[in-house]
Amino acid sequence: MPRTPGYKHSKAIDNSGFSPNSSAEGGRLTNKDGRINLKKSGVPLYERISVYHSLLHMNNFVFTLTVFAIYTCLNLSFASLYFLIGIDHLAGAHRSGDFFEDFLQAFFFSSQTLTTVGYGHISPVGFVANVIASMESFIGIMSFALVTGMFYARFSRPKAYIRFSPNLLVAPFQGGRALMFRLATYKNNHLTDADAQVTIAIHVEESGKTVTKFYPLELEISHINSLALSWTIVHKLDEKSPLVDFTEEDFNTCRIEMMITIKAFDDHFSNTVQQRTSYTQDELVYGARFLPMYARSDDGSYTNLMLEKLNLHEPATLPT
Amino acid sequence: MPRTPGYKHSKAIDNSGFSPNSSAEGGRLTNKDGRINLKKSGVPLYERISVYHSLLHMNNFVFTLTVFAIYTCLNLSFASLYFLIGIDHLAGAHRSGDFFEDFLQAFFFSSQTLTTVGYGHISPVGFVANVIASMESFIGIMSFALVTGMFYARFSRPKAYIRFSPNLLVAPFQGGRALMFRLATYKNNHLTDADAQVTIAIHVEESGKTVTKFYPLELEISHINSLALSWTIVHKLDEKSPLVDFTEEDFNTCRIEMMITIKAFDDHFSNTVQQRTSYTQDELVYGARFLPMYARSDDGSYTNLMLEKLNLHEPATLPT
Amino acid sequence: MPRTPGYKHSKAIDNSGFSPNSSAEGGRLTNKDGRINLKKSGVPLYERISVYHSLLHMNNFVFTLTVFAIYTCLNLSFASLYFLIGIDHLAGAHRSGDFFEDFLQAFFFSSQTLTTVGYGHISPVGFVANVIASMESFIGIMSFALVTGMFYARFSRPKAYIRFSPNLLVAPFQGGRALMFRLATYKNNHLTDADAQVTIAIHVEESGKTVTKFYPLELEISHINSLALSWTIVHKLDEKSPLVDFTEEDFNTCRIEMMITIKAFDDHFSNTVQQRTSYTQDELVYGARFLPMYARSDDGSYTNLMLEKLNLHEPATLPT
Amino acid sequence: MPRTPGYKHSKAIDNSGFSPNSSAEGGRLTNKDGRINLKKSGVPLYERISVYHSLLHMNNFVFTLTVFAIYTCLNLSFASLYFLIGIDHLAGAHRSGDFFEDFLQAFFFSSQTLTTVGYGHISPVGFVANVIASMESFIGIMSFALVTGMFYARFSRPKAYIRFSPNLLVAPFQGGRALMFRLATYKNNHLTDADAQVTIAIHVEESGKTVTKFYPLELEISHINSLALSWTIVHKLDEKSPLVDFTEEDFNTCRIEMMITIKAFDDHFSNTVQQRTSYTQDELVYGARFLPMYARSDDGSYTNLMLEKLNLHEPATLPT
Repeated sequence: MPRTPGYKHSKAIDNSGFSPNSSAEGGRLTNKDGRINLKKSGVPLYERISVYHSLLHMNNFVFTLTVFAIYTCLNLSFASLYFLIGIDHLAGAHRSGDFFEDFLQAFFFSSQTLTTVGYGHISPVGFVANVIASMESFIGIMSFALVTGMFYARFSRPKAYIRFSPNLLVAPFQGGRALMFRLATYKNNHLTDADAQVTIAIHVEESGKTVTKFYPLELEISHINSLALSWTIVHKLDEKSPLVDFTEEDFNTCRIEMMITIKAFDDHFSNTVQQRTSYTQDELVYGARFLPMYARSDDGSYTNLMLEKLNLHEPATLPT
Repeated sequence: MPRTPGYKHSKAIDNSGFSPNSSAEGGRLTNKDGRINLKKSGVPLYERISVYHSLLHMNNFVFTLTVFAIYTCLNLSFASLYFLIGIDHLAGAHRSGDFFEDFLQAFFFSSQTLTTVGYGHISPVGFVANVIASMESFIGIMSFALVTGMFYARFSRPKAYIRFSPNLLVAPFQGGRALMFRLATYKNNHLTDADAQVTIAIHVEESGKTVTKFYPLELEISHINSLALSWTIVHKLDEKSPLVDFTEEDFNTCRIEMMITIKAFDDHFSNTVQQRTSYTQDELVYGARFLPMYARSDDGSYTNLMLEKLNLHEPATLPT
Repeated sequence: MPRTPGYKHSKAIDNSGFSPNSSAEGGRLTNKDGRINLKKSGVPLYERISVYHSLLHMNNFVFTLTVFAIYTCLNLSFASLYFLIGIDHLAGAHRSGDFFEDFLQAFFFSSQTLTTVGYGHISPVGFVANVIASMESFIGIMSFALVTGMFYARFSRPKAYIRFSPNLLVAPFQGGRALMFRLATYKNNHLTDADAQVTIAIHVEESGKTVTKFYPLELEISHINSLALSWTIVHKLDEKSPLVDFTEEDFNTCRIEMMITIKAFDDHFSNTVQQRTSYTQDELVYGARFLPMYARSDDGSYTNLMLEKLNLHEPATLPT
Repeated sequence: MPRTPGYKHSKAIDNSGFSPNSSAEGGRLTNKDGRINLKKSGVPLYERISVYHSLLHMNNFVFTLTVFAIYTCLNLSFASLYFLIGIDHLAGAHRSGDFFEDFLQAFFFSSQTLTTVGYGHISPVGFVANVIASMESFIGIMSFALVTGMFYARFSRPKAYIRFSPNLLVAPFQGGRALMFRLATYKNNHLTDADAQVTIAIHVEESGKTVTKFYPLELEISHINSLALSWTIVHKLDEKSPLVDFTEEDFNTCRIEMMITIKAFDDHFSNTVQQRTSYTQDELVYGARFLPMYARSDDGSYTNLMLEKLNLHEPATLPT
């Protein structure tokens, strides 16, 4: 059980969006990628899932696979229809008697119709085949319309492209201690008017029960005009901090979790972008300092930001 | 007639966007889905309707039907044209003499042109047929362009996906009473920086005439950093509330209507989303309290939000 | 020459974006539709014109015509190419010897290629024809891609759909006078958090020279939560107004121009929309009041907003 | 070495996003076009590059070339496949024995499939050819979907279209001196609610080391309601300025760099747009004043903004 630490003098907030009831919570609150560690139930899957959100967040490989699977399924369905009404309703195809060969001809006609390539060496004959072909090309265009939109949405989705240092340091700072982490944009994007908001969750015993308490953390600099180089975010562990007298052990015992939101304006997207992450005690390094991660280029004409040094730190003695 | 209640001490607002003149108003001000209960007249329909807004708000089934209907109409129109200039202007089609069969051939050629599938077993012959076919494929591409855009717009439309508890409770709160309702996001979206704005409309007699008065309601928490779990919105019925001395009967007599606007930032859409709703006295439960709707998962690794419990409440005694 | 009016006590602003130098200005500052009455020169047309902006603002008819014209031009250009290399490079086309007929065949082949309908009864033969056809279908798809985007952009462009009363009234108000105009949304859209900003320009003589002075006008209500019904915007002509002692004649002599910007949030577009307009002395009615424009519906279930009454006003005596 | 100038009394800011460590910086901080003069390393190229951002910023010519190159590559790849499986799997093509001629036929069939024009005079025969053709038309549609989106994104990208005067002047102003530059929108767009933010970087010696110091500059007018005409941005060199006692030589010695961000609302895009630029001592003209750049049109009906005069200035004597 921890000593009664100084956080008692600080004002916990109740608008973190999380519950102070530790017994209702499982695991960390926010995952590294910024998603809330939460599942929802009691609503049918199709209502609970936003197809749009899901497709937006799939990785490229899975997305391509999904699109290809849908294309193949549509093709197979229509091929079956053509096959069922009889392959002789397709002029240019020849009834071979072989199931597989006949079905393939229907399948290829179907794919030529779905993509509207329509070579014409196979063409529909009669009312039913024509109606199905007409429907298929219509459905083909509609489906590709959706896929076009989805491709574009994935491609153009405003993202912050921020990388955070994997570790959170307790570093020496102005004669005292400070919590520090570092971030930088890693793509050819540029953020302006960036704001950082940091909330810490600590789990403490109160009247024999474990409760989760949330505190906003004051930052040395919480707004930056232009996120050009790296940005080291610093919370000084002084009298105003709820963690003022936390020892290395306290950070572990209280199972701290630091939740971070960065909001900025990306002038390529002309949109506000946001990225979130969190640090737990497992990612905390007690007694260390970050080393510089940028330098003048060899020819002196530009500044070089070395992203591989984002987490570079060396041990440092902390004042007592 | 109601007793003169405490709302007289509160300052009514006149920027609610609604009229204080009760005799000009019909029914509730805002529908459950957040739309204003209002019709507009005096402007021709085509000016009064934003086709874009209408198509955005159609449900999926009606939208698909609409698109399909337009496709069929376009097809029929062009088929008629080909039929009128004579089926012999379509090489590959054969004049059967049967009206229906001839028209069908024109129709199928038309659909092959509109979707640009163009098999070619039927093809236009002569100036007129070629010009029409050229126009049709052009119009086809234009129409599908519009539909593509519309599909995407519907699909990607920023929405808050918030579900509100069907009931508004008068619940015991900090030794007094409070108006409470609960909300949660029900999809795999995540809202941050959520703001709630609540306005109440009450209908009261003033100098023998019924007037509608509007009051902003102060909330215990009106801003939340992260809408992770559920959010119970609380308006305490204390001295600062215009409803301080409302009895259960008063809520009914004054035909209260509580109008709610939630505004938040969705970091998937990277956009501000807004959702509105309203509660009337019919949805008010006097003397009840909400029960918890989330719990630790069985394996303790995440939190489970049970959406089916969004409205779960039990009777509760109110202080007098 | 006007008497020295009370505006001298008010603080003119210099951040209106317009020039105080009347002799440099021509005509009204802002047109009725909110565009600035300004032309730019000294830059080549192609740099001065944002094609995107222009296409966005064309009316539907002109836009359709433009697209159709481009389609025809592209078609004609490629038809000429096919014709130049010789019609015998198009299998299925027959050399008729007649210039017009031959060109038409090239033209129709071109349109079938551009729209990718590709029936195939005419097809390219030989290297040159094939390369041109390959280019044309590529260019066709690219062009239609642009048009698709443009169609969608026009269709989905966030607009406020606000209608302003054609007249600006000087009306009796709270025992004094006030400048009033009225606005309402006329489509099935809904605006929330609407803000009005009003600036007045007056032309006055100062040391023998006419200068334009700009004043922000204070409004009775400049923010409205929900723009449900109509909104009457009121500027009281009291001591704080720069126009406090303006007579009917002064409004004319000083050639007033009132510039209005309405900014609001449209929750269908999930976007901020803005609309501007201006009133000059020609649209001012001195001594009138607006009549109500909404009423309860016959069955009492909704409110009816009668847009044809937006400008409905009756003469009214003004206090002296 | 410069005299110790008055900037010592001003408060330097540390949230400029740049480093105060001059020895780590190379060249100017911000390029003329507003991009940060920075390169990033330590991350593989494909992670460091946002394809979307790159395609957005290519000029039109390079973009068209890129798209065309991809189209040709895709075509060549598929043509090779058809060629490899043998040209006799393409009905309508004839095996000529000539490598080049055979490959060309495969190439043209490929392009007809990729663009879905599918004339059909060449068509796939057999399982393998059909599968490849089916894949190709699918890939064709997907690729064109991406290109469609990209075209639209480039076309509709919210841009401020602001032109800055190439020179920064030190001009006489209100009996003293002021830093001035001028800007105007040069397209048929219209910006409202424009904000200017100006930061100056100066390189000075402190304890024998060159450090970069950043100061926000106070502006005479930093917000403008409507960016109708030109906007001259003025920073007075008075007591409150960190550059109060800068001589012409100091501007050079300290290698000043003025970084500018303009943020405004474009009501056509209905979006916030932002443009950045910077001035160094090389673009500074000491002792000059801007000349007017707008005038009444000949017929007096509008104002004419002459963009060619944006940088027009004449020498002017500065007070000492």
